[in-house]
Amino acid sequence: MAEVADMRGPEDTIAALRDGLPDGVLVTDPDVAASYAHDMANLCAAGRPAAVVLAETVEQVQHVMRVATRLRVPVVPQGARTGLSGGANAVDGCILLSLVRMDRILEIDPVDRVAVVEPGVVNADLSKAAGEFGLTYPPDPSSWETCTIGGNIGTGAGGLCCVKYGVTAEYVLGLDVVLADGELLRTGRRTAKGVAGYDLTRLFVGAEGTLGVVVRATLALRPTPPPALALVAQFDSTAAVGRAVAAVTAAGHVPSLMELMDATTVRAVNDLANMGLPAQTAALLMVAVDTPDPGPELAAIGRLCEEAGAFEVLAADDAEQSAMFLAARRLALPALERLGTGMIDDVAVPRSRLADMLDGVARIAEEHDTVIGVCAHAGDGNTHPIVIFDAADPAAAERASAAFGAIMGLGLALGGTITGEHGVGSLKRDWLARELGPVGVRVHQAVKAAFDPLGILNPGKVIAS
Amino acid sequence: MAEVADMRGPEDTIAALRDGLPDGVLVTDPDVAASYAHDMANLCAAGRPAAVVLAETVEQVQHVMRVATRLRVPVVPQGARTGLSGGANAVDGCILLSLVRMDRILEIDPVDRVAVVEPGVVNADLSKAAGEFGLTYPPDPSSWETCTIGGNIGTGAGGLCCVKYGVTAEYVLGLDVVLADGELLRTGRRTAKGVAGYDLTRLFVGAEGTLGVVVRATLALRPTPPPALALVAQFDSTAAVGRAVAAVTAAGHVPSLMELMDATTVRAVNDLANMGLPAQTAALLMVAVDTPDPGPELAAIGRLCEEAGAFEVLAADDAEQSAMFLAARRLALPALERLGTGMIDDVAVPRSRLADMLDGVARIAEEHDTVIGVCAHAGDGNTHPIVIFDAADPAAAERASAAFGAIMGLGLALGGTITGEHGVGSLKRDWLARELGPVGVRVHQAVKAAFDPLGILNPGKVIAS
Repeated sequence: MAEVADMRGPEDTIAALRDGLPDGVLVTDPDVAASYAHDMANLCAAGRPAAVVLAETVEQVQHVMRVATRLRVPVVPQGARTGLSGGANAVDGCILLSLVRMDRILEIDPVDRVAVVEPGVVNADLSKAAGEFGLTYPPDPSSWETCTIGGNIGTGAGGLCCVKYGVTAEYVLGLDVVLADGELLRTGRRTAKGVAGYDLTRLFVGAEGTLGVVVRATLALRPTPPPALALVAQFDSTAAVGRAVAAVTAAGHVPSLMELMDATTVRAVNDLANMGLPAQTAALLMVAVDTPDPGPELAAIGRLCEEAGAFEVLAADDAEQSAMFLAARRLALPALERLGTGMIDDVAVPRSRLADMLDGVARIAEEHDTVIGVCAHAGDGNTHPIVIFDAADPAAAERASAAFGAIMGLGLALGGTITGEHGVGSLKRDWLARELGPVGVRVHQAVKAAFDPLGILNPGKVIAS
Repeated sequence: MAEVADMRGPEDTIAALRDGLPDGVLVTDPDVAASYAHDMANLCAAGRPAAVVLAETVEQVQHVMRVATRLRVPVVPQGARTGLSGGANAVDGCILLSLVRMDRILEIDPVDRVAVVEPGVVNADLSKAAGEFGLTYPPDPSSWETCTIGGNIGTGAGGLCCVKYGVTAEYVLGLDVVLADGELLRTGRRTAKGVAGYDLTRLFVGAEGTLGVVVRATLALRPTPPPALALVAQFDSTAAVGRAVAAVTAAGHVPSLMELMDATTVRAVNDLANMGLPAQTAALLMVAVDTPDPGPELAAIGRLCEEAGAFEVLAADDAEQSAMFLAARRLALPALERLGTGMIDDVAVPRSRLADMLDGVARIAEEHDTVIGVCAHAGDGNTHPIVIFDAADPAAAERASAAFGAIMGLGLALGGTITGEHGVGSLKRDWLARELGPVGVRVHQAVKAAFDPLGILNPGKVIAS
């Protein structure tokens, strides 16, 4: 028999994997395997996997990593592949390690306010299960009904409620992680506080599987807040909406939601849902408050919007009407994608630079002769400019791609970051290097090498090795 | 001239430091330097420093690290030395790098809700400055009137308000860090959200200067909450107070403070302040609420305490009386230290195990024939058993030390951690290894080596190299 370390081809990988996995876990049919090769990022290359492993146990994940170490084969961990940066995309010859079958909620404890879950648990399923105890798991990415907790942890996912309740990272107390060599590392704690040693837990959050494979998570839960009451304010200029966001924050309000749609997005939603929104709207701001008595605070926020220049402020009468407002916000992406293929960007800027960001994106759209609609988690300064293009037209795709990059450049110039909640993946790797600078890149590479000396864990994602 | 890398003695270190530092920054008098050699941890060894550098600029810190790299000399970064784990203690021949003179608040921005500060800023000074904008910097360690933000970041400090508002780590958005070789790394962001690359910011928080020297921090601020309203509940058993804490949490309350004192502590405070507390008190629980209308919620919490078995519940009439309750809590440590020298432990357990922890500590006190008073941030499960002993009696000191260790062992057995907010330093290094296990230790060492290949940054603290 040949020396194991010399094995390289897909057949060798498959043979080594099979020797340790039960039937039904290993997918080797090339067409089926290829169907796992992509997440939801458009214009993002993917390679051909050697195989897919639909792992069901920690031991199987350890087996995969031991095989990968022995054969020097890359491993790409995956959840529901709803990511938007190509982080879960295959690289040639890799093992796609899917964690979706590890989907048990192992424990919910209402006194310690923690959940212990496997990585394949769907975000919405955890929210539902926690709800039975009067608790909630706040991070709510748009894909919450299908995305997995493991994927949320990998990308550091955010969502609408993060302006008040924070992002995934703030809810991860401890992790079980299978390391590159197959060893099992336990990080963190289930206590509310703890500073014992380096914060390895947080290092794995947002690392997109480049440092290890998360196989279990201890998550903090919160009491379910009261139903939110929302208002919608319309502005005829980006400067006015920027002033409103700044005024609400500076006055000390902590809304549970503060969403912005630009003129392009408002028109698209209007066309889709026939909502009769006024034509002069340059930006629409939606603000919700979920305190026990939200009315007075919401009214105060409405007055600040008017003072900032809103030409119309409509406050919901009750939680039901508030939910309808929110449903309109959730139409933004589908409405824009009726216009063409969308590349959704994810640039966060300091809250005070929001108007500058909106104006800059409008300028970029004009310069690159492309349509860009902007939704934003305005309270966080986290904008999602969505570049719309005709995928059948290579020149249009190229212009879209250039606009996408220009948006990140704008964000950096405004003191922001190239990704607020979607992650780097392969899509933004070169831009990350620009954000980090040479010292930051060097430190990232040193950290990567400390965890993955052979470079087998999701290679080419986040940082060049 | 001798090859620079061969230099080793204190004179060589001093000569190399002097060549690049202005007058008044370098302290070489051995007696004066020795006065910087300790933090506030009792029974914690300290070595003899070669010199102290009272750095005033980032460039001076870079100079120190370049000298240290060239000469292979250890560097121990320091703030106000109010730490309780020996993290700032000198090692033989080291450069003590004090950051206390870098004490400028560079910026407070009420729209972005951030502060940019140097590491020597005193916690209370930042709180005061933020207060002028209606903002607050929540982490409030007991030493908040003297401790520095840099020290808070190094240890991952907590405080009384953390049960609602979280610990230091949650407020650090970005850092400037001088690395072992003197290079300047910028981590993180000033935006509310961001997931660009590995979370290096969080890796430096709680690393006690073993990975780099923090020279600037961008911190999140929050709106100042309304004044808190507090109650005091007295219990005649630890089981009853444990039930009360669990009931308050399970009912979805989020108090702004939830502090516990055990019988020993209550008696000590009573003796010090002549407060006339009942003799049968086995535990006293203090709970505060800082919502806009705290009365009804506080009353509901009081009822839960009674249902759990409190024999007396006294709610404050107003914020002023509430502040008096809190003042009594702040007397706990001084009251206990009237009885002897105190070693303050810092073990966090899952909230549900609080009564088990109290009972276990009482058992340990008896077994080791020593006095132990417990204060706890009960809402976090973060206990501070304070072992009291006669420092002049070596046998008593030895018993105290054994009890101190036994408390950590108990915490681990209850699913907790050896440190909730004070850090590891040299005091708890061996216990950290026990908490982490062999895989965790190996990963810690790999991370340490990635940042500090020569082992010059606060060697011997946190993790053995």
